[in-house]
Amino acid sequence: MIGKLYGVGLGPGDPELMTLKAYRLIQNADVIAYPTLEGGESFARAIAAAALPDGVEEIAIHVPMSVKREPAQAAYDTGAAQIAVALDVGKSVVVLCEGDPFFYGSFMYLFSRLSDRYETEVVAGVTSVTACAAAMQKPLTARNEVLTIIPGPISADDLHARVRGAEAVAIMKVGRHLPKIKKVLADLNLTQHAVYVERATLPVEKVLPLADAPEPAPYFSMILVTKGNDPWL
Amino acid sequence: MIGKLYGVGLGPGDPELMTLKAYRLIQNADVIAYPTLEGGESFARAIAAAALPDGVEEIAIHVPMSVKREPAQAAYDTGAAQIAVALDVGKSVVVLCEGDPFFYGSFMYLFSRLSDRYETEVVAGVTSVTACAAAMQKPLTARNEVLTIIPGPISADDLHARVRGAEAVAIMKVGRHLPKIKKVLADLNLTQHAVYVERATLPVEKVLPLADAPEPAPYFSMILVTKGNDPWL
Repeated sequence: MIGKLYGVGLGPGDPELMTLKAYRLIQNADVIAYPTLEGGESFARAIAAAALPDGVEEIAIHVPMSVKREPAQAAYDTGAAQIAVALDVGKSVVVLCEGDPFFYGSFMYLFSRLSDRYETEVVAGVTSVTACAAAMQKPLTARNEVLTIIPGPISADDLHARVRGAEAVAIMKVGRHLPKIKKVLADLNLTQHAVYVERATLPVEKVLPLADAPEPAPYFSMILVTKGNDPWL
Repeated sequence: MIGKLYGVGLGPGDPELMTLKAYRLIQNADVIAYPTLEGGESFARAIAAAALPDGVEEIAIHVPMSVKREPAQAAYDTGAAQIAVALDVGKSVVVLCEGDPFFYGSFMYLFSRLSDRYETEVVAGVTSVTACAAAMQKPLTARNEVLTIIPGPISADDLHARVRGAEAVAIMKVGRHLPKIKKVLADLNLTQHAVYVERATLPVEKVLPLADAPEPAPYFSMILVTKGNDPWL
């Protein structure tokens, strides 16, 4: 019997924001797998730590940091091959994913390598976007507002064009892109509508007006821009 | 002692996609509150049903269906007043929210009426957007792709303009707007990139190519458009 592959979203960081389903699947997993950046700690594994069964087999996928994409893809090749070995002998494999597996997640690189050969289920998780809105205590989108979610690394020109026509905006993966993002939002006169949120739902969470955002910002930070168009709010 | 107000996201429909925190808060609630459309069933209450403590006090907020907004706002006034009475005598009140409270949710109308007077915590939930991506078994956004989330009720012209410049797109609350949305996507040559998902994560879930979407579509349906720009997928 062949095992089943699960890509399981763990939410934004607070282990209690894991879903009941994620918790159950992890507790019953034969094998867990997760990426680590250059052999460092795995944030996903840290979120799931309390749910891991004793003695569960672990596959750590060491993803090298590089502007070139080939080295990371080679790491996913290796990880997928290790997962396939476990599935072939009937073990269930749960891939631990920060946030949601299909929302800017690395799980998709395992999914693309394995899902045509193995039964695969993706379990959605709470994303950092709505976790940041909860942290800033302000509705993200009401009624017929459009929400645009933008990764911070895109160019200043692209960012300007995307934000200018938008209603509510979430800019993810801020990190070292903070100065660029601040300038674009200032040029668009949106600074006073922008909130900076860092490590939402963790004990070290920070929520600040954009003007007070610390530099350098960590990778796990976000800027939310809400214009509050609903006159009933 | 004054009670605390919680706006708690329950996820897209499968009760197992509730977070551990939502489950704990509901189990310990003195009072639960939830909207119902014109006195009908509450979807939020149905999702939470198995978690409700015996004999919990319930506040149902009957929101009338109307193009005018005043009648609904009057219902939220009444609901907020009932919740305030419970909070004033020290009861904890959990407002049950489909999906996420601040993502197109009606909770924001209670939040705007109560959060300046009462301690209020918002607990993020899994949104239907990532649940639909999991259901269609296709990554929603990779790396630096922009995601645009659009409510189906906006005009055909606005929809055309929003989708034309976009990368990944999620069109929510499809319902009776399906014919309009199909036409806009056909005009933009995007039909073959579009997937229709209905009641994601429920036993009656449907995932279909847009061309096969049934008419009329239910309110709880979505169209996802992904162009798959990542050459490594």
